[in-house]
Amino acid sequence: MSSTRARANREAVDALLAADPVLLGIESAQSAMGLPKTTVLTSGPTMPFAAYTGGQRAAIIGGALYEGLAPDEAAAVAAFDSGAIVVRGCQEFGCVGSLAGVTTASMPVVVVANEATGERAYCTLYEGDSVDRLNYGSYTAATRENLETLRLQVAPALNTLIAAQTEPLRLKPIMARALTMGDELHSRNAAATLLFLRRLLVGAKQLGQELEYALDSLCDDYFFLRLSMAASKVMANAMCGVANSSVVTAMAFSCAQFGIQTSGTGDTWFTGPLPTFEDFRLESGYDADDIEFMGGESIITEVVGLGGIAQAAGLPLQRSSGRSVVRMVARTTAMYDITVTESPDFLIPVLNYRGTPLGLDVERIIQPTGITPFLDIGIAGRSGRQIGGGVARAPREPFLKAWEALTTA
Amino acid sequence: MSSTRARANREAVDALLAADPVLLGIESAQSAMGLPKTTVLTSGPTMPFAAYTGGQRAAIIGGALYEGLAPDEAAAVAAFDSGAIVVRGCQEFGCVGSLAGVTTASMPVVVVANEATGERAYCTLYEGDSVDRLNYGSYTAATRENLETLRLQVAPALNTLIAAQTEPLRLKPIMARALTMGDELHSRNAAATLLFLRRLLVGAKQLGQELEYALDSLCDDYFFLRLSMAASKVMANAMCGVANSSVVTAMAFSCAQFGIQTSGTGDTWFTGPLPTFEDFRLESGYDADDIEFMGGESIITEVVGLGGIAQAAGLPLQRSSGRSVVRMVARTTAMYDITVTESPDFLIPVLNYRGTPLGLDVERIIQPTGITPFLDIGIAGRSGRQIGGGVARAPREPFLKAWEALTTA
Repeated sequence: MSSTRARANREAVDALLAADPVLLGIESAQSAMGLPKTTVLTSGPTMPFAAYTGGQRAAIIGGALYEGLAPDEAAAVAAFDSGAIVVRGCQEFGCVGSLAGVTTASMPVVVVANEATGERAYCTLYEGDSVDRLNYGSYTAATRENLETLRLQVAPALNTLIAAQTEPLRLKPIMARALTMGDELHSRNAAATLLFLRRLLVGAKQLGQELEYALDSLCDDYFFLRLSMAASKVMANAMCGVANSSVVTAMAFSCAQFGIQTSGTGDTWFTGPLPTFEDFRLESGYDADDIEFMGGESIITEVVGLGGIAQAAGLPLQRSSGRSVVRMVARTTAMYDITVTESPDFLIPVLNYRGTPLGLDVERIIQPTGITPFLDIGIAGRSGRQIGGGVARAPREPFLKAWEALTTA
Repeated sequence: MSSTRARANREAVDALLAADPVLLGIESAQSAMGLPKTTVLTSGPTMPFAAYTGGQRAAIIGGALYEGLAPDEAAAVAAFDSGAIVVRGCQEFGCVGSLAGVTTASMPVVVVANEATGERAYCTLYEGDSVDRLNYGSYTAATRENLETLRLQVAPALNTLIAAQTEPLRLKPIMARALTMGDELHSRNAAATLLFLRRLLVGAKQLGQELEYALDSLCDDYFFLRLSMAASKVMANAMCGVANSSVVTAMAFSCAQFGIQTSGTGDTWFTGPLPTFEDFRLESGYDADDIEFMGGESIITEVVGLGGIAQAAGLPLQRSSGRSVVRMVARTTAMYDITVTESPDFLIPVLNYRGTPLGLDVERIIQPTGITPFLDIGIAGRSGRQIGGGVARAPREPFLKAWEALTTA
């Protein structure tokens, strides 16, 4: 490769990296892009109308009908043939077409600007998962009604929220974060849509005091932990009180001791020393001497097969406590050796949707392999604040004591 | 293992699987759990007050002060010593404590019930990422103010939304889905918090027409795709017009042809045949004969290193189009061979946060390896609707033509 070309390519890519896409709002294609009323845009390099076939042709004709450019299909075809209606490639107008990509003057389009250059790009709104979607070649009464809903209800509602923003709606941070949450931003946009929703609501300063209070709290990614804990507790409690069962039903620790309960032994706590850390990360300025155990019962999540037991599901944690993908996957894999079964509900993508290890079993844990449950825990410092997070390992003693009680009862 | 124990363990685990945790609301610990005003709960098996040390002891004392049980630390200690204030383990009250887990009568707790049994569990609200958190052993004016905000503002606001729900707030579906989005629900709750936020807003029927319209649309996980497309377009456009650059700046297809543009060749489309599918999944009742190309420009996401280029970030897609984790990781890995660099912004957890392959390079694509870009695309059927999704491969011809133009210009 010539160094001239390499430099040129680097320049091109640097320009992309400097691009800062911001959602400005939603407008009609006519006002946003200057799209003439008699032009129908569609995906791909522009071709003569006659070259479009099948569903794309049907979608183009549907676009003309939706726009009111012809009373019926035959009239629309005649108008395209005569040049009264023109078909053009989306990208000639800075627009990108989804599938057939039919875009007409009255349709609402998202307007995204590159803040670094001012340049804009456009795209229509998602038609939903209805079977009646113009961009899949279907133009029915339901298609039309759906397009009207987008134009008359969804777009204005979104614009109200967009207009209420106090800061620019930057899309790149949302995209970057979504990519760590299972999205690749083409076939999957699940996390990005949620992140955008929250960003939109948080940024809009007219939602009413109540909703704002709730949102402030819901913006913290840890908000759900307390729900996860209480939900885990009721799920764990469901396992309690089965005679002979060696399944762990609770784990908790105080500043001095770690304790477990099992299904077959009721409310008795079997205790032992505090957990040890296998991996941890502390904020800068702190070292292991600053770590203080102050208690913790969030490891109820581990009791139901989540948290440290399901680390392979939380790969983004590699940067805080997990250390590496390989370690995290290995840890979850090891947990299958000490559990009764696998969850049919909680599935792990990177393990090909294998269920999380479920039902920590004292009998399996006391085997000579020495495998005890992994615990994903926050780390408190002597200074009285959170100074990090880590992967701890439960001590062996409480399980040995529980086993003795289970087998001598 | 005895078959009696195995059966018992299975029974215990089956009870957990049947558990259906539902958020009922947020109440004071006193009203929800019958917690006496003079009892302070903390994490771990109950110990005598004197056995709690360090941050946990400080947190317990802080709980007594917050509850107004003593005017200062010395008085609180005296009251604990005399038995006027009692310390107990959280789990004796069905509560789970986060870290030090201090829970007192007036504190709001989430109330989660197992719908299958009616049993309840409780947990305090997240104190936020302030350094002044009671559960990390800190009790300052800021700690107190934060706890008061949770009690007087956050909890009532959340209760308003919870009370407005028309359906029970089931937590297990949220947890299951979050587990496919990078959460393990202990140290990481990022997706679960977002899913819960949306669920809470969607279920509350008093948000006003505008917000409801917007939410309806935002509930569709594909909503963001159009933002992803327009953002990708402005980012891709940033690469345009660099003399000698062989970087791809646009890709699109119609029903008849696939086209690309490059940085060094302006608006010229270099075209070739339609893409082929390497993996795809169709809805039942459809086969490959039903597939129809109707155009598509969403592959602008691939131009900026997302979509099919970043499949390793979208592992949940293994169930729709990707087929397997290994294939998806291998595909992204192959894309590094045909790109100029790696994104510093868009990072892939399963690849140890390696940046997405960035800057599709015509010169690299025309090499004898024959590697062309992967494209994550929706599949339209002849019936005029979406019938599936797949991983397609760009044709080689447009890149060969572009290379000729780049090198003969």
